Amino acid sequence: MPIVSLSEMTNGQEGDLFVLMTVKEELTTRDGKPYFKVAFRDHAREVNFPIWHDSPWGADCRDSWQPGTFYKVRGVFRDTNYGPQLELRKIREVCGADEADGFSPAMCLAQSRFDAREMFDELVAIAREKIEEQALRQLVVDLLEHNKNELLTLPAATRNHHAFVGGWLEHVLSVTRTSVFLANKYDQDYPEMRPRLNKSLVIAGAILHDIGKLREIKPQPQGAQYTASGNLIGHILQGRDIVREAATADGLPGDLLLRLEHIIVSHQRLPEWGSPKPPMTPEALIVHYADDLDAKYQMMVCILREDTNPGPVTSKKNVLYQKVYRGEE
Amino acid sequence: MPIVSLSEMTNGQEGDLFVLMTVKEELTTRDGKPYFKVAFRDHAREVNFPIWHDSPWGADCRDSWQPGTFYKVRGVFRDTNYGPQLELRKIREVCGADEADGFSPAMCLAQSRFDAREMFDELVAIAREKIEEQALRQLVVDLLEHNKNELLTLPAATRNHHAFVGGWLEHVLSVTRTSVFLANKYDQDYPEMRPRLNKSLVIAGAILHDIGKLREIKPQPQGAQYTASGNLIGHILQGRDIVREAATADGLPGDLLLRLEHIIVSHQRLPEWGSPKPPMTPEALIVHYADDLDAKYQMMVCILREDTNPGPVTSKKNVLYQKVYRGEE
Amino acid sequence: MPIVSLSEMTNGQEGDLFVLMTVKEELTTRDGKPYFKVAFRDHAREVNFPIWHDSPWGADCRDSWQPGTFYKVRGVFRDTNYGPQLELRKIREVCGADEADGFSPAMCLAQSRFDAREMFDELVAIAREKIEEQALRQLVVDLLEHNKNELLTLPAATRNHHAFVGGWLEHVLSVTRTSVFLANKYDQDYPEMRPRLNKSLVIAGAILHDIGKLREIKPQPQGAQYTASGNLIGHILQGRDIVREAATADGLPGDLLLRLEHIIVSHQRLPEWGSPKPPMTPEALIVHYADDLDAKYQMMVCILREDTNPGPVTSKKNVLYQKVYRGEE
Amino acid sequence: MPIVSLSEMTNGQEGDLFVLMTVKEELTTRDGKPYFKVAFRDHAREVNFPIWHDSPWGADCRDSWQPGTFYKVRGVFRDTNYGPQLELRKIREVCGADEADGFSPAMCLAQSRFDAREMFDELVAIAREKIEEQALRQLVVDLLEHNKNELLTLPAATRNHHAFVGGWLEHVLSVTRTSVFLANKYDQDYPEMRPRLNKSLVIAGAILHDIGKLREIKPQPQGAQYTASGNLIGHILQGRDIVREAATADGLPGDLLLRLEHIIVSHQRLPEWGSPKPPMTPEALIVHYADDLDAKYQMMVCILREDTNPGPVTSKKNVLYQKVYRGEE
Amino acid sequence: MPIVSLSEMTNGQEGDLFVLMTVKEELTTRDGKPYFKVAFRDHAREVNFPIWHDSPWGADCRDSWQPGTFYKVRGVFRDTNYGPQLELRKIREVCGADEADGFSPAMCLAQSRFDAREMFDELVAIAREKIEEQALRQLVVDLLEHNKNELLTLPAATRNHHAFVGGWLEHVLSVTRTSVFLANKYDQDYPEMRPRLNKSLVIAGAILHDIGKLREIKPQPQGAQYTASGNLIGHILQGRDIVREAATADGLPGDLLLRLEHIIVSHQRLPEWGSPKPPMTPEALIVHYADDLDAKYQMMVCILREDTNPGPVTSKKNVLYQKVYRGEE
Amino acid sequence: MPIVSLSEMTNGQEGDLFVLMTVKEELTTRDGKPYFKVAFRDHAREVNFPIWHDSPWGADCRDSWQPGTFYKVRGVFRDTNYGPQLELRKIREVCGADEADGFSPAMCLAQSRFDAREMFDELVAIAREKIEEQALRQLVVDLLEHNKNELLTLPAATRNHHAFVGGWLEHVLSVTRTSVFLANKYDQDYPEMRPRLNKSLVIAGAILHDIGKLREIKPQPQGAQYTASGNLIGHILQGRDIVREAATADGLPGDLLLRLEHIIVSHQRLPEWGSPKPPMTPEALIVHYADDLDAKYQMMVCILREDTNPGPVTSKKNVLYQKVYRGEE
Repeated sequence: MPIVSLSEMTNGQEGDLFVLMTVKEELTTRDGKPYFKVAFRDHAREVNFPIWHDSPWGADCRDSWQPGTFYKVRGVFRDTNYGPQLELRKIREVCGADEADGFSPAMCLAQSRFDAREMFDELVAIAREKIEEQALRQLVVDLLEHNKNELLTLPAATRNHHAFVGGWLEHVLSVTRTSVFLANKYDQDYPEMRPRLNKSLVIAGAILHDIGKLREIKPQPQGAQYTASGNLIGHILQGRDIVREAATADGLPGDLLLRLEHIIVSHQRLPEWGSPKPPMTPEALIVHYADDLDAKYQMMVCILREDTNPGPVTSKKNVLYQKVYRGEE
Repeated sequence: MPIVSLSEMTNGQEGDLFVLMTVKEELTTRDGKPYFKVAFRDHAREVNFPIWHDSPWGADCRDSWQPGTFYKVRGVFRDTNYGPQLELRKIREVCGADEADGFSPAMCLAQSRFDAREMFDELVAIAREKIEEQALRQLVVDLLEHNKNELLTLPAATRNHHAFVGGWLEHVLSVTRTSVFLANKYDQDYPEMRPRLNKSLVIAGAILHDIGKLREIKPQPQGAQYTASGNLIGHILQGRDIVREAATADGLPGDLLLRLEHIIVSHQRLPEWGSPKPPMTPEALIVHYADDLDAKYQMMVCILREDTNPGPVTSKKNVLYQKVYRGEE
Repeated sequence: MPIVSLSEMTNGQEGDLFVLMTVKEELTTRDGKPYFKVAFRDHAREVNFPIWHDSPWGADCRDSWQPGTFYKVRGVFRDTNYGPQLELRKIREVCGADEADGFSPAMCLAQSRFDAREMFDELVAIAREKIEEQALRQLVVDLLEHNKNELLTLPAATRNHHAFVGGWLEHVLSVTRTSVFLANKYDQDYPEMRPRLNKSLVIAGAILHDIGKLREIKPQPQGAQYTASGNLIGHILQGRDIVREAATADGLPGDLLLRLEHIIVSHQRLPEWGSPKPPMTPEALIVHYADDLDAKYQMMVCILREDTNPGPVTSKKNVLYQKVYRGEE
Repeated sequence: MPIVSLSEMTNGQEGDLFVLMTVKEELTTRDGKPYFKVAFRDHAREVNFPIWHDSPWGADCRDSWQPGTFYKVRGVFRDTNYGPQLELRKIREVCGADEADGFSPAMCLAQSRFDAREMFDELVAIAREKIEEQALRQLVVDLLEHNKNELLTLPAATRNHHAFVGGWLEHVLSVTRTSVFLANKYDQDYPEMRPRLNKSLVIAGAILHDIGKLREIKPQPQGAQYTASGNLIGHILQGRDIVREAATADGLPGDLLLRLEHIIVSHQRLPEWGSPKPPMTPEALIVHYADDLDAKYQMMVCILREDTNPGPVTSKKNVLYQKVYRGEE
Repeated sequence: MPIVSLSEMTNGQEGDLFVLMTVKEELTTRDGKPYFKVAFRDHAREVNFPIWHDSPWGADCRDSWQPGTFYKVRGVFRDTNYGPQLELRKIREVCGADEADGFSPAMCLAQSRFDAREMFDELVAIAREKIEEQALRQLVVDLLEHNKNELLTLPAATRNHHAFVGGWLEHVLSVTRTSVFLANKYDQDYPEMRPRLNKSLVIAGAILHDIGKLREIKPQPQGAQYTASGNLIGHILQGRDIVREAATADGLPGDLLLRLEHIIVSHQRLPEWGSPKPPMTPEALIVHYADDLDAKYQMMVCILREDTNPGPVTSKKNVLYQKVYRGEE
Repeated sequence: MPIVSLSEMTNGQEGDLFVLMTVKEELTTRDGKPYFKVAFRDHAREVNFPIWHDSPWGADCRDSWQPGTFYKVRGVFRDTNYGPQLELRKIREVCGADEADGFSPAMCLAQSRFDAREMFDELVAIAREKIEEQALRQLVVDLLEHNKNELLTLPAATRNHHAFVGGWLEHVLSVTRTSVFLANKYDQDYPEMRPRLNKSLVIAGAILHDIGKLREIKPQPQGAQYTASGNLIGHILQGRDIVREAATADGLPGDLLLRLEHIIVSHQRLPEWGSPKPPMTPEALIVHYADDLDAKYQMMVCILREDTNPGPVTSKKNVLYQKVYRGEE
């Protein structure tokens, strides 16, 4: 049986495939018939279907299948009126030998369209080239390098925007590119502003504004979760912690460190969005706008892709709580 | 007596100078002594001082001086504890012959740091080069050209931001440059978005988002005023009017016109800021952010320049209703 | 078999009837059994029931039935525990010959309790008799006459209030009657107000305040939808467009036109309700209150009629988001 | 010396006049010179001017003049740059004999343009004729008659709207007339509503909605003040008290009393405007709108009369916190 | 068959038990199968399960079972995947003779963990000992004694907090104890405050702040309901009524009564929470905080007990609309 | 000449006194006469008066007097119509020898009514006795001891509440006492809550909730100022920093530290009041209420003491933005 990819299967096709289990919920029909709702996914398609208690897979499902586990499955793909489904023929946990057949966990996870290492390298390169203050540059580069492993896969959020493997890098790189442009532009437009715009600080702030996600979010195969400290404290305060802890070592001048902390603390602008202080420096203002636009733009892209409402506008049941205009065909 | 510039005079210097009268208010001291508070300005400095009813200028001031009129004045400049003042020796209205001595109205008005014609030309050039749809390009170029005279001097607002001669051009050009960058960036980042980002539309929207100021604001030498329709209808709706009236002639396809109107209508995003609809297209989202950042940035620049609060932060009595951080010396 | 009316059938009665299909949704029971939820209505009753995929009508339903289409049906009416239902015996699309049997589309649509033509005539009569300024009267009468066909059936909204055939006329006539009373009353009470209340303007504003619905709403047999421009621009701005386009022809003096536009623009009073400007003239104030009360009153009438909550108050799940008091019985 | 009326004096005219002292504040000029700011008024004009400590009237002013007291004054009226003033020649408290010369307190108080007794009689007549339920009619008539003396002069508020002698009657009569119209109209429009609109209740509610002002406001010659219970409890709750206390005697059926109380409790609609509950009956809805429009309309009339801002719109510093459009001359 | 308690039964156990029916709703499965959803409870456990129309109990259930009725049941307890259920073997209404077997209604109702009579006695004791003003003490004691029967079982709310038999007493006693502490503390801390803190008033206010629940809530076996006046007027205003009616008899001095009324009126502090006035006296401030903390604390206790969300935080779908931190195991 | 205390001087009395200069502002009268507004204070009275440029003290005042400096003054106290004033006879800076005459800076500063050292000792004693977890107790005691010097004088705020020397201690001690009571009470009331209330944590949180004021506020003789980091970051985040830095040394278990940080972060409850997270633990809930009541109570005490509005209620121009009821005399 050939190894196939779930997201490329067509109606009626049978094959062996590697998938991640993402959901197992015990439910009952209204008239009392018990079943498990289960879901499996690869990087681009998710199928969900019932496993009846009294069906052949009922006992196995109850006793041993676990969300967050990778499985090798033989199944027939069905494109039904109730969405895409899978008729199971065989199922077992992935084992070491499967790597020889091409298995890797990444093949089952939603991830950035861009290569994580390339994004990481570009971010480091921007930091090295564009941050002129030595101590600040060192701080940023160190923080990226020391957390490289986690940053390569970290999502930007548990849902809302960039909620996929590599989402943090994709979002942060995009915000940083915009910030480089805006810092140059506004410095050129207002050379007489005092104190003069600190372009290095804008870039450092853009790269580090979401660094607290490292402590707020616990990525897991079946979807990211908030940590205890993420719930009780939040990424804005924890991002400032990470910078302060590192800054001690890097010898950043006090006022510069304070301005950098302020960019992180104020980057969501309003108290009800999590920022205890509004942007009070031009540098913080730029990072806030670059960040906010990038998040909202990605949300709009997702809504346009996923909304199934007929007609020229989408439903307003989405992360923006508003309609998006798709246009007349 | 040499012709001097008010904004370059030093304490005790006497000279002949051309100024604009901006204020004449009849007041009385607490103990009942009547006087006129008057103010005169050139492009960069404003002086204000009392004319006592019973002083030599009292009768002239009451009977003939008018705010909004240009005067040739001989006076001694005094930098007093109560701010800069002028001891009047002579005063008469400017006449035609004064142009020979270098008078022009513009020398008495606050104005953009940039050359209005160059800004205008750059805006037209962007429209010609970057807007690919023929009808849309024509619409934008026509609107700029037909309103060229007013646009060369129009402020962007009566106060708040870019409230000076040429302010509309300075603000709109800046927003347009940012929008060009963002349109290219996000189109490259999400080439698969459907409908695809219409970069021409972003640029047209950026150039025209504030076109309604032509009908909302009546520029006057002593400061811009709202028109009756500006008060009752507002620039957002009137900007859409201008575009719709012109579009009839230019034969813009319906859906494209609708999307362009929407950018104008939604560019302030929130109902309480004047937008009846939030940005519902990616194009509108970009123009909103480019516009909002530019306005807020210019406000922050002004606050940093003008605030006189001692210490590391400014007062919060300013157009942003918040403190701005200046830093420790 | 006699032709009967759906809304007059009793339990167990069989008959031939003309109905409009309003819903066809493909669903599945929790345990995976597929069916279509369908609904049919006449002017005063709607029935909905399942068509199982494997039932005799399953294939026809899937392949050819369409919401928005009129059908001649033979069926048995059942008043079941799950609401009123219909057992289908025969079903075919309505054809030309059915008019001979009394079919007309209107018999299947919810509509105003009042005769549309009479309401239209009364509205025109009020305009002719009570609007004293010639140009203003002409503008209003022309706009009514030119849009007569659409206005005879237009609903006032897609839901919320007066969401039925003729709803626009019913609501606008009611608002206009109230406005006639209030204009007379307040003009009499404050004859010394300057500028004096323009009663003609109040009446013109009342008649035209919702004229933009013509472009915002697309009436369809199965329920009104928002147009693209309705979504992106909204009826408040489009109503002003309609008036401005017509005013050019009718030669209305500028200040009068501006005041009329302002009534339309401000008639919902608050930005978050869609009005970019609050009522800034006494005329606009009157129209706002007459309109707001009429909409809220009709909502309350509907809630009292339709709510099924036991006890002296209704549920708060309704268009007013509050309880309504019905009283102890 | 002829007896004249302050509000009819012309510049330079001397005369004897009866006035009410409304203000006496001890102030000092910036450079330390002490004086009293005093004000006197008749029903339509107020003058204010300084009494210097060291002037002839200084000692009398400090020792014996009291705001809220009526004076007979001989003075010269001056229309100065600092507003209308009075040069005092003689001043003494009004005494009994002055009535022979035409003095009455009412001639010095701002008051309704309408005759208080006529308004009162009309209100009672409406109650007698239009309230059909016997007990309800009796309750309303009794409450009016028993409080007749206070109601003849009560203002509707300390400021904001109808803040003058007879203001309560003027406002309540106007609201009642509108409510009579609306009750008839909506009962006719929705005869099938259940429970049917209780027109008697609408009228009773309109007449009594502000009855709590009797306990909230303490009218005083120099301007109404809030009572202690007005501050701590407010007129909405106290109005309900008055009705409940009277209802015990009048034997109103429980549900009718409850609905009447609810009209009073909900007549300002929003919690932040003082209503703990929103209108939950059609009767309460009508009274709320009739009341709100009347208050706002009177505010707009006052703003148009009193605002001195040049140009087509008023300032926004007024009780409505918004601009009002006056129009181009 | 032994008499057992529903809340102590274990899986598979059969027994005779006394229960209260709390729910009977007629529903249908998605595929049209009709059933009744029924629920029964004792003081600490509720079971709910379907009664199919065509099952042996179908007819009895439809025809005679009523929520709010007590039943003697023989059944087998099942701890199923769909929650705790009961297999019915026998069922009949409770009759007089059952008291001999230990039946009392209270055994089927959720109730306070504390003895109602002891709480009542403690409350009266506090009033007697700590309220020094004679008339005030008498008023409070009288109100408690005259309403003793209702207060012994009254819940504090229909849901949200302390929504069980005896909940009013539990909440009020707790608020009163805190208020005694705070009154002593703040009087000691600010002995120089004028007027001095009236400790008796604090305690009287604490005891009576929710007395209006007597008229707002109608306790019923199957759960408390709002009365008509509770819906239209609310407990805050009705609590003040109760005090005012009693105060007439008790001869409370006017200012003291007013301050007491104010505590009741302001105890929820914000208009949107139901208080027309904010706390304007130190006494009202203390009662507000003691009350608010007690309600919120009890909500948090319930959320921690009932939330079933896995992980260190609860869901945010609860009466506080926020997550509560439970901690890592 | 005897040494006297400014706050005890009577009209016309002459004496030598030690005072702190708090204000020196250069102003001008409306008619252009320049002067300095100066103010001097001891611990309980402040006088302010003009020093005219051309008066004997004019030059000294301009050249050498500085706010924040202590002076020995000989003067005559005058209780004038313009408030209390001082006629200066002699003035010089305080010098070392003045201590022999009883001078200490504290005699010129507003300060707590309680002894700072006693409050400090009580706070430490509570920590030692009531915090059972060893590491937590050590952390709290260490933080208090290491910052003892600053804490002995720190105010609780720059204005609003407890804005005087020792204010931090007075406020924190009061909050802690209340928290001890509430922790005991609620632990006793809900012994079955899981996780059980951690009383030690409540007390630690109460003591440390405002510890960040150490970094937010810079106390200065003439009044406390915000530091740069106070402006850009705020005391809530900086308080958490202080605890985290100390906790590393004290080896506090992670979950306990996290809960303690959360109390600090959430103690102002709402985002717009500065708390990025609401109280999510019972411990945080208690500290929030104890803190909020104490601040509001002290504000009300100050308003009652300082408001000069005549009548039974204060003005609403105060830190609570509302009226406070004082009562009828």
